[in-house]
Amino acid sequence: MDAISSKQMKTCVPYLCLFALFAMSLPSFADGQSKQAVAYDLVVKDATIVTMDPERRVINDGVIAVNGDIIAFIGTTSAFQTTTAKGIVAKQTIDAKGKLIMPGLINGHTHIPMVLMRGLIDDVTLDDWLRKYIFPAEARNVTKDFVRWGSRLALAEMIRSGTTTFADMYYFEDTEAEETKAAGVRGILGETWIDFPAPDNKSNAEMAAYTEKFLNKWQGDPLIHPAVAPHSIYTCSEKTLRDAAAMARKYHAPILIHVAEMRKELVDSIEKNGATPVQYLERIEVLGPDVLAAHCIWTDYTDMKILADRQVGCVHNPSSNMMLASGVAPVVDQRAAGMRVGLGTDGPSGSNNDLDMMEEMDLAAKLQKTYRVDPRALGAKGALEMATIEGARALHMEKEIGSLETGKKADFVVLNLNVPNAVPMFDVYSQIVYALKASEVETVVVGGKPVMKDGKVLTVDEAQAIAKGIEYGNWVAASLKN
Amino acid sequence: MDAISSKQMKTCVPYLCLFALFAMSLPSFADGQSKQAVAYDLVVKDATIVTMDPERRVINDGVIAVNGDIIAFIGTTSAFQTTTAKGIVAKQTIDAKGKLIMPGLINGHTHIPMVLMRGLIDDVTLDDWLRKYIFPAEARNVTKDFVRWGSRLALAEMIRSGTTTFADMYYFEDTEAEETKAAGVRGILGETWIDFPAPDNKSNAEMAAYTEKFLNKWQGDPLIHPAVAPHSIYTCSEKTLRDAAAMARKYHAPILIHVAEMRKELVDSIEKNGATPVQYLERIEVLGPDVLAAHCIWTDYTDMKILADRQVGCVHNPSSNMMLASGVAPVVDQRAAGMRVGLGTDGPSGSNNDLDMMEEMDLAAKLQKTYRVDPRALGAKGALEMATIEGARALHMEKEIGSLETGKKADFVVLNLNVPNAVPMFDVYSQIVYALKASEVETVVVGGKPVMKDGKVLTVDEAQAIAKGIEYGNWVAASLKN
Repeated sequence: MDAISSKQMKTCVPYLCLFALFAMSLPSFADGQSKQAVAYDLVVKDATIVTMDPERRVINDGVIAVNGDIIAFIGTTSAFQTTTAKGIVAKQTIDAKGKLIMPGLINGHTHIPMVLMRGLIDDVTLDDWLRKYIFPAEARNVTKDFVRWGSRLALAEMIRSGTTTFADMYYFEDTEAEETKAAGVRGILGETWIDFPAPDNKSNAEMAAYTEKFLNKWQGDPLIHPAVAPHSIYTCSEKTLRDAAAMARKYHAPILIHVAEMRKELVDSIEKNGATPVQYLERIEVLGPDVLAAHCIWTDYTDMKILADRQVGCVHNPSSNMMLASGVAPVVDQRAAGMRVGLGTDGPSGSNNDLDMMEEMDLAAKLQKTYRVDPRALGAKGALEMATIEGARALHMEKEIGSLETGKKADFVVLNLNVPNAVPMFDVYSQIVYALKASEVETVVVGGKPVMKDGKVLTVDEAQAIAKGIEYGNWVAASLKN
Repeated sequence: MDAISSKQMKTCVPYLCLFALFAMSLPSFADGQSKQAVAYDLVVKDATIVTMDPERRVINDGVIAVNGDIIAFIGTTSAFQTTTAKGIVAKQTIDAKGKLIMPGLINGHTHIPMVLMRGLIDDVTLDDWLRKYIFPAEARNVTKDFVRWGSRLALAEMIRSGTTTFADMYYFEDTEAEETKAAGVRGILGETWIDFPAPDNKSNAEMAAYTEKFLNKWQGDPLIHPAVAPHSIYTCSEKTLRDAAAMARKYHAPILIHVAEMRKELVDSIEKNGATPVQYLERIEVLGPDVLAAHCIWTDYTDMKILADRQVGCVHNPSSNMMLASGVAPVVDQRAAGMRVGLGTDGPSGSNNDLDMMEEMDLAAKLQKTYRVDPRALGAKGALEMATIEGARALHMEKEIGSLETGKKADFVVLNLNVPNAVPMFDVYSQIVYALKASEVETVVVGGKPVMKDGKVLTVDEAQAIAKGIEYGNWVAASLKN
């Protein structure tokens, strides 16, 4: 698998172009049997690859070869050499010697533009946080431009911490979709529906119209998956929830919703609906294999069985749940009950305050150990599963993302191990979850395209996003003084 | 406060040297009244300084000026200009415009050479961890060289995450002290006493002799504070504990000990001693204002009152306590009872697995919120206090370190804010604890000397330490296969 030299490359460019076109048009031709050089858009070589495939293979001295946005080959260097006996033509090569590759992380629940209110107010009750600070701040500040710049800043932060896919519900979601696509990141995005005026849409009719337009605009996009996002059972009437579900089903779009986040939500639901939040949502026919339910903290065994049977995706948010003292989700029981449980950061204001999935994995494992008073409760491999393949299952996208396998999307992260906290390494899962940090993320590839390379974010102008972030921060602070 | 040019500097070197000698010999001369240029070894300018002084001042546009290892001036740029109206002579200047400065972090409890067993085995019970893995691995691998290279690697990691002082108990502690001094970090170090053979000393008599020699060698060192370190009440007899305390008191040295870390320790102590671990230690006259007690999880209100009255320093280790499911220390109650409560990482193997105090602060706040089901339980400022001035009080070193004040040691950290996760910033405490990471640590100064500058560790050959870390990791893994 020798890379050909730059000079040789220049000499044969016309031929190579012709050949590459030919090879790509005939994928069946591009295997070991053909005895011809094989063309790839991207080849990553010499890495230790944590695949998270069904066998949880860890490939030492591994290769990933990509065509388009798809993994065309993954395996050992020697297997690759057999496959490509006549040589390869790679448009781009990444030498990952001494580095670790894992699937791109999946942030299953967040509200990224809130990054512009990061740390606005913390260490207060949820009620004070919402009523005294966040709602007034959002009412005075959240505009299309706020969402644009907040998204851009957040996307840089997410890329830097190895996130390649995220699910988000906020306002001006179409602007967020534009930014996400521009940053080259995969987004499952839904405009929030609530039964009171939002910063953008002032009525349920406007929210529905906005969402329908949004669905029509983005469906079929390779990166953006438009969703319908009724906020929760305590902010949406039964009618709103049913309308949202109906629209989602009409368009075969995912449904994003907060479920059983607070104890009060449980108590109120039992009083009002005579049912737990999960059982109420089941009764009004919202639950199904298209639902992504954030939090699911206050769920009993009956709820868990329903969520598992209905194939609802659930997202655990340990930082947020700890920060707001919402309770501890019974993640180990939920996984044992067959639920699809992913991992998320929640919004980066008041409930985290960052978008760092590396940290979220560490916290998920440590929180379950603490909660169950058992160090075996949730281990490093389980936490990485929640951030990758189980996160993909929660999003019902496990056929496309969440593990590194031939035929799946080429979404992966290259981690630098040449730092004091990365050595020695006895177990890759343990190292990723308990010792490595976002700072070790060096290169990030989404759908075969590098969005960060050797520590530099390629798809966001970071300096500009940071400057705008500071500017918006000043405005938010000033708006609350008036 | 204009820095003079390099050319001007060269011209007047002979005069400046004479003047500097004169100014340093007459410190009273070097104030604003003198109307003469003032000489400093180091001036840091234009920073936002989080002082953690008694008024918890945050100085925007601030200056720190250092002579020797002491802060000679801290205040606003305009106050500095008044003080130095005739100009300054600074041997070294750090421009910290747009950056944040905080006191160096204090890791109150760890076993740093264990970094060479980082992630050796995790997600198992404490008993399995110790008996099946750590004890055999230590017996087969822990040598003086193991401690040397483990310490060196760990010191690089600690410097990178902003730690300027740490308290440690392990084996071959004299070697660890040499490494710590070479790295320019402040260490409170104690050779472990246990009632069974250690990797270095095989009997209590050897441990006592080693410690006495160690105390004699290091006492009076500006960076190394030698301590006496009886491991715990469950590994040391009453005689060992009393002997250790007596030696510490003879030399006015600190006592490092694990206290009430495990529920079993509490239950066993009540059965064996008819008292809680704390009340047993009080009865056998170990407790006093020279004791640094790690963990203190299983402490009741009577214990807390004793620990407060005796001015015992306690160290909370949230990562370790979560990882090993040891229980949750009642930190909020302990602080309310007047206890001195610092923060630590514990050893970086099986119980963390890193030495990152930035992460520990975040976890401390989030864990107390979760444990007390109250988001107001422990806030960002409280967590930073535990890692700085309260940590210093736990170490009984609050007159020297823990806050940035004139006359105290110049131990501080410069944090880079030019990254996506650092903006916007509404509250410095919230930002440091919940949003900034070790990766934002840019420059670290201990006793006036930079040990890391602009992202480069100056006092440890990192490449060599990393290479050795990998090598030792291979040996440890191989040793367990035999």
